[in-house]
Amino acid sequence: RSMATLARKNLTIGLIPADGIGQEVIPAARTAIEAVGSDIPSLKFVDLVAGFETFTRTGTALPPETVESLKEECDCALFGSVSSPSRKVVGYSSPIVALRKILDLYANIRPVVSAKQVSPVVGVPPDVDLVVVRENTECLYIKQEELRVTDHGKEARATRLITERASRRIGQMAFDIALNRPRQAMIHKSNVLSVTDGLFRETVRAVPDIEPKYQKVTVMEQLVDSAVYRLFREPKVFDVMVAPNLYGDILSDAAAALVGSLGVVPSVNAGDNFVMGEPVHGSAPDIVGQGIANPVASIRSAALMLHHLGYIKGANRIDTAVDSVVREAAYLTPDLGGTARTEDVVNEIVKRI
Amino acid sequence: RSMATLARKNLTIGLIPADGIGQEVIPAARTAIEAVGSDIPSLKFVDLVAGFETFTRTGTALPPETVESLKEECDCALFGSVSSPSRKVVGYSSPIVALRKILDLYANIRPVVSAKQVSPVVGVPPDVDLVVVRENTECLYIKQEELRVTDHGKEARATRLITERASRRIGQMAFDIALNRPRQAMIHKSNVLSVTDGLFRETVRAVPDIEPKYQKVTVMEQLVDSAVYRLFREPKVFDVMVAPNLYGDILSDAAAALVGSLGVVPSVNAGDNFVMGEPVHGSAPDIVGQGIANPVASIRSAALMLHHLGYIKGANRIDTAVDSVVREAAYLTPDLGGTARTEDVVNEIVKRI
Ligand SMILES: CC(C)[C@H](C(=O)O)[C@@H](O)C(=O)O
Ligand SMILES: CC(C)[C@H](C(=O)O)[C@@H](O)C(=O)O
Repeated sequence: RSMATLARKNLTIGLIPADGIGQEVIPAARTAIEAVGSDIPSLKFVDLVAGFETFTRTGTALPPETVESLKEECDCALFGSVSSPSRKVVGYSSPIVALRKILDLYANIRPVVSAKQVSPVVGVPPDVDLVVVRENTECLYIKQEELRVTDHGKEARATRLITERASRRIGQMAFDIALNRPRQAMIHKSNVLSVTDGLFRETVRAVPDIEPKYQKVTVMEQLVDSAVYRLFREPKVFDVMVAPNLYGDILSDAAAALVGSLGVVPSVNAGDNFVMGEPVHGSAPDIVGQGIANPVASIRSAALMLHHLGYIKGANRIDTAVDSVVREAAYLTPDLGGTARTEDVVNEIVKRI
Repeated sequence: RSMATLARKNLTIGLIPADGIGQEVIPAARTAIEAVGSDIPSLKFVDLVAGFETFTRTGTALPPETVESLKEECDCALFGSVSSPSRKVVGYSSPIVALRKILDLYANIRPVVSAKQVSPVVGVPPDVDLVVVRENTECLYIKQEELRVTDHGKEARATRLITERASRRIGQMAFDIALNRPRQAMIHKSNVLSVTDGLFRETVRAVPDIEPKYQKVTVMEQLVDSAVYRLFREPKVFDVMVAPNLYGDILSDAAAALVGSLGVVPSVNAGDNFVMGEPVHGSAPDIVGQGIANPVASIRSAALMLHHLGYIKGANRIDTAVDSVVREAAYLTPDLGGTARTEDVVNEIVKRI
């Protein structure tokens, strides 16, 4: 289910740094890709805008030109991070959620692997190695919400959508990834949401009936609340975790806490025809502009994206360089307990690519 | 907002062990309450049934007699835990979710405090002291779900309800608890759910405008995904956490992981006229019947319930006894790394009451 067959001579990458530290880490990812440029015959970057800053400037968080370029011009993209307004802002809507939908990037793949040498703040044994496979187009993220004013005050409703089609394709993606690992855990809350999570569960469970090659994968299930609990108590229990959108969002942040920092966790938003790398971290307003944002998550997202596109060699060169820098721990940003600046880390990684 | 004014001469407590280890820990809680019986002039227990086992036996998970007794006869109750069927079972619906609704137990209060002497498996510094205040009647827990069969396969929808009324009263409850602690964090996902979580956020935020005594409480906010992340990286950041139903469910399990075991985390489901103690843990099918279930969560739930009813002295006697047993660590069940059996722990606690 990777797009390996799509690997092409010319690769055009859209760069959407968006808000906050996205502006610092997406250029870092670009630098890393350029460093393996010789493996990619013709490489082109297109600078694109989106985000809350874009919204305040232009009135839209996702300008049509950005969407058009992604659809017409780009083969893939890297997205930084978006700021969330601290008060409700009329007309603002998250561009990343919209992009996932518009480009039908139905799988959010988030590998969470400990850097063995990094000693995490909370002292968790650093031996986590799992992949969160998050459904990326539906659940509460369809943003179908309404507000009514009644005699008892305001009432708001949101619709949570779970379809057989989306559950099946995310299930297939998860089983594909689980083929190279022994186990897959379905995460849901079917003890409360028997219809929606019931459908997710039944559909994912039925995938090996349709594609027998998946029958060798060991399948387990866990309610989302217990899954978060177990993730912290016995992280080795999990391998591939497949979940509806919101649970996947929470699980990937939870898993990131286990490996020392959100600053090292990459993701790709993958569809059948497009892939978009995106660090799992947010816009980090507390450290923006200081030059100390961790570029590792974005650089790893770039590698994951290249891998997904079939540029295996280039992807591996980036990953190997990143892993060695993180492992040796001489160039770490403050989130990992180091004193290095973003550019120090990038330079060191590029040196080793 | 506690029911202290309701403390009465006669106290009738409904006991609903329900499934799995609920059958082992609710009797333990009863024993602890009986041990402080002298502080409660006239104490009566009523044995009630509910749960999956009751469903398979009688066709309903929550018999009308149970509801009637709770409404007519009981002043409060203790609920054990329910098993979740591993496959969809037509007609089965969680009795605990129904009870919270029927009895209008709108606040689920879950204090999570580390037992200083217990060394948690994952090595988290044992200095957690927070309270999750979970809205208990709406969100996705209204179980309004529907299934459609379309040309593209099955589609399931669930409604997530957030009302001003429920958000206000849970906000008031949280602020009340926060009066004795410095801070309160609102947990939501308003960057995606701007209408429903937007309403929750605005309503809780506005509570101090209505009741000025709350203005001394420091208020913060955190998106649910980052909240789970921060809970693990910097648990001391949080104090009182107030959240809609599902986030509260996940957050309380996450917090429980920080203090060594779900087996020590109590809760009460509180309304204006009724309170029901409930351990946060589940029915634990893996250890059921072995006599090694941790009774601490249930005994603490009993104390929390008595406290809420205004039996402060009795509640404190139980809490002091439990804390000393856990702290000294000579009588711990296997979930906390010990070798004690349920009855050993109960005997030791009763001895100290
Ligand atoms: C920014 C936000 C809308 C987004 C999400 O919830 O998907 C983020 O948390 C993520 O995980 O990519
Ligand atoms: C058993 C289940 C319905 C319940 C819930 O989700 O509320 C449980 O997880 C809890 O936390 O009390």
